[in-house]
Amino acid sequence: MTPAKAGTKAEAKVEAKLPKADSPIAVELAKKQKAISVAEFFEKNRHMLGFDSLPRCLITCVKEAVDNALDACEESQILPDIYIRVRKVDERILNVVIEDNGPGVQKDVLPRVFGKLLYGSRFHAIRQSRGQQGIGISAAVLYAQLTSGKPVRITSRIDPKLPAYVYELKIDTQTNEPKLLSENYDDFFTSRGTRIELNMEATYVRGRQSVMEYLKNTAIVNPHARITFVDPYDERVIFERACDVLPKQPIEIKPHPHGIELGTLIKMLQSTDNLKLSSFLSLSFAKIGGHTMDSICKEANLDPAMAPQDLAQDIDGVKRLMAAFQKIKIQAPPKDCLSPITGDLLKKGLTQNHRVDFISTVSRPVNVSRGNPFLVEAAIAYGGDIDTEGRAEIYRIANRVPLMYQQGACAITHAIERINWKNYNMEQPKGAKMPQGPIMIMVHVASTNVPFTSESKDAIADIPELEDEIELAVREAARDLGRYLAEQKKALDARKKIKMFEAYTKELAIALQDLTGKDHAVIEAQLRDVLAKKFTKFIDTDEPVKQEAANDSPQ
Amino acid sequence: MTPAKAGTKAEAKVEAKLPKADSPIAVELAKKQKAISVAEFFEKNRHMLGFDSLPRCLITCVKEAVDNALDACEESQILPDIYIRVRKVDERILNVVIEDNGPGVQKDVLPRVFGKLLYGSRFHAIRQSRGQQGIGISAAVLYAQLTSGKPVRITSRIDPKLPAYVYELKIDTQTNEPKLLSENYDDFFTSRGTRIELNMEATYVRGRQSVMEYLKNTAIVNPHARITFVDPYDERVIFERACDVLPKQPIEIKPHPHGIELGTLIKMLQSTDNLKLSSFLSLSFAKIGGHTMDSICKEANLDPAMAPQDLAQDIDGVKRLMAAFQKIKIQAPPKDCLSPITGDLLKKGLTQNHRVDFISTVSRPVNVSRGNPFLVEAAIAYGGDIDTEGRAEIYRIANRVPLMYQQGACAITHAIERINWKNYNMEQPKGAKMPQGPIMIMVHVASTNVPFTSESKDAIADIPELEDEIELAVREAARDLGRYLAEQKKALDARKKIKMFEAYTKELAIALQDLTGKDHAVIEAQLRDVLAKKFTKFIDTDEPVKQEAANDSPQ
Repeated sequence: MTPAKAGTKAEAKVEAKLPKADSPIAVELAKKQKAISVAEFFEKNRHMLGFDSLPRCLITCVKEAVDNALDACEESQILPDIYIRVRKVDERILNVVIEDNGPGVQKDVLPRVFGKLLYGSRFHAIRQSRGQQGIGISAAVLYAQLTSGKPVRITSRIDPKLPAYVYELKIDTQTNEPKLLSENYDDFFTSRGTRIELNMEATYVRGRQSVMEYLKNTAIVNPHARITFVDPYDERVIFERACDVLPKQPIEIKPHPHGIELGTLIKMLQSTDNLKLSSFLSLSFAKIGGHTMDSICKEANLDPAMAPQDLAQDIDGVKRLMAAFQKIKIQAPPKDCLSPITGDLLKKGLTQNHRVDFISTVSRPVNVSRGNPFLVEAAIAYGGDIDTEGRAEIYRIANRVPLMYQQGACAITHAIERINWKNYNMEQPKGAKMPQGPIMIMVHVASTNVPFTSESKDAIADIPELEDEIELAVREAARDLGRYLAEQKKALDARKKIKMFEAYTKELAIALQDLTGKDHAVIEAQLRDVLAKKFTKFIDTDEPVKQEAANDSPQ
Repeated sequence: MTPAKAGTKAEAKVEAKLPKADSPIAVELAKKQKAISVAEFFEKNRHMLGFDSLPRCLITCVKEAVDNALDACEESQILPDIYIRVRKVDERILNVVIEDNGPGVQKDVLPRVFGKLLYGSRFHAIRQSRGQQGIGISAAVLYAQLTSGKPVRITSRIDPKLPAYVYELKIDTQTNEPKLLSENYDDFFTSRGTRIELNMEATYVRGRQSVMEYLKNTAIVNPHARITFVDPYDERVIFERACDVLPKQPIEIKPHPHGIELGTLIKMLQSTDNLKLSSFLSLSFAKIGGHTMDSICKEANLDPAMAPQDLAQDIDGVKRLMAAFQKIKIQAPPKDCLSPITGDLLKKGLTQNHRVDFISTVSRPVNVSRGNPFLVEAAIAYGGDIDTEGRAEIYRIANRVPLMYQQGACAITHAIERINWKNYNMEQPKGAKMPQGPIMIMVHVASTNVPFTSESKDAIADIPELEDEIELAVREAARDLGRYLAEQKKALDARKKIKMFEAYTKELAIALQDLTGKDHAVIEAQLRDVLAKKFTKFIDTDEPVKQEAANDSPQ
């Protein structure tokens, strides 16, 4: 196979020489080739966005709106106050309203924020946020119009001095662009915030996978938010703030050299405005200072003064640069791009609805996966009134968002299943993947880019670095629980011994009276005294002692 | 909240009256809002397309190319002959070549077929095909350029009378458009077909999740294809054709009224060229003839002569039309849009590499889910040399493509797990979700639109109609196996009884001689004769009899 001469000349020759080829099948097939708009794609594949079963459609819609509200409030340093109302329109259709006290959405961008898929502010930013795709809320709009035929109604006010504007819009699926149906002003809307109102085919349910459960778990991991929910029976539930302090706002960072892909690096080299490789390296990446930059260039055998665009042409040079990124010691990425929940609040969350006998929390140091800083937090609670019907219960959280579906497909679950729980004094029947007993395991993965298995953000993909960190975090917490359980067992054994000993104290004292001549009452009192001193902590109570452990790994 | 006056007048008034509002946070936030190209999106989320672990990246790439080759060959009625070669470039990079004898890709569309995500010929067609998204092969190109920095090289010839053209191309991720790097001709390429060559970061492995396993299973469910594979150690494996007949080509159909969404129906009404509702209904849908059309319009209280565009404005009318679609009896969709494997070939597939004692196959009738016709086929094999290390083994197939990952997240698995296998005389320990023993379960879901949980097409989403059909199919096959196992048990019990009886025949005969006066040798012979007659089928052999069962439900 030797390529012939290229270019338009060869082409012209061929087309002149050969018969007009309308016979080949390929020509017929080519006529059917067509671009597919991303809106069309997701309309057909809406289950990928979390719009599959009717109960779930409601949860997904509420989730996307609440995620956006929390992100927007935190970015603007506003304590979130979110109101959700669900009403029945008819047997098939629910009316859903989500209102927040956030910064509002500016008029020019509003139609696209709600009416265009793959449009957003957080996709290109390297910092922890709930939304990262620019798909979520427009997916809800898409689903609403598909099933109710009605547009969505958005009200937003960005300044108390300005009126709110009210838009009714749909998505034109063929172009993936918003289609405005009406545009109004509203002077009486709340002083600042956004309100979304949609009609959609959905079912309201209660139970383990429900809006209520999602909001409850959201409140646990976002204790700074007040969330009000009015259900279709007009019952109002308020999840009050557990603290009045906003979490520290994660700061946007530059990409870290570890884990950057070759193709991405080439693209960055091509498109940079920097004239020299040296400035490109120090200005485009996190944690590359002057000294590190020098070492990298030296290791890669590259001239710091060379033009980045020239390097982009030389794949071998780029490969050497990539290798140097790995070889030269570079500091871990700054952790202020992440917003961990912290051990205290994890503890608060897990014990808010439960009395527990023991709880252990772990925060792992920041790590990097494919250039994305991430950290894992874990908590294990045991005993008390935890009733998990045998098997340990798992709570999965990603960037402060509780994950409700696809537990079996999630890296958190898989990491937990890799652990031999018997090593930590827990019961695990042969073949069972989870420990048994009154155990709750909560894992929070915080990352600048959580690798979800699909757009519906139900499960975290099995990225080895991530799974390893999750396993380490859970193991650390499990070790504490294991120690506690061992002590409990020891205490139980000791109590048994004491009880047995106590039962024979009198007989023993009488026997000793014969040997020593001392009064058996005195001996008995002395024996009891010894028992009391030696086993004091086991004697008074059969109740296990409540214990806490916290492991904050050095970061 | 009363909306104020709308329109430009109100807007002008507000902007004149109020101070220039550069203060609100929303204005700052708006500046960050940006459209995200679908290529950028998937570059960042490549794991959603099946490009996560290094061994898997290779499988996904081969799979996408082979799927395309099989689809293209079948559409053109060509017996597929596919060649795959994997070579090591260096420690990190593999070179992958996939070549087919298909119709080739026409010059004008080729760059976008390989260099644009969401571009294809099968997305809008309602019929069974492997590819349906227009993402797969361009995703491989995207991943290859990201990790190797190199363009992909495509050679294609659509007619032996024309030379092949050779393109080197990349995807411009910011625009999601192909970028041609070179364009040549090649006179010596095979007479017709397409060749793809990529360099990508990937690892070649063997075992359960490997290219070899994928190709083996692909050959099983596509017995009309010849597949040649050359591995990095230059070993060549040929999966020869098991039959020389192409499967019947599925025919493109119109949407079926059952399961059509309200929003889709409105869109169809808006964009149709038909002037009357009557012609719109009969021309736009499958299985709406004149009589059915009349009944539907009557039931919906709609004038058949009305303009579809007028109806599109009247949501209540559209809703009545939807309700009538459900109420009026409409024939099931034509099944020729599907291409089942059929019981015989399923049997052939499962027994190709195994000797089995029993096999049962089931083909369920065509059903509809959200307007998409689908059918389920199942096969269960038992015994022989099947060694599944205890637990039953599941083979999942969707539109003739074996699914390799995410078994735990798949509707096929979930449907199988819903079954109480003890009812079918199989072992299933408490808590175990699968039956135990030497059992293989194969399920094929054929649909005009398989609802995969993500773009990587690993697992089928839990759509209730689909899961129910899968369960029914597997149950039917399980019933046959259950009967077989019960007979086996009965035979075993009978054999035990006979053996016991035989052991005492002589004693019995002697005792009967005393009673009857007959010679005991004669009595013994008679007794043995009775035994032989009555239990003839159990006497000669301890081997279970090989049995087959096939259930083809009336369609």
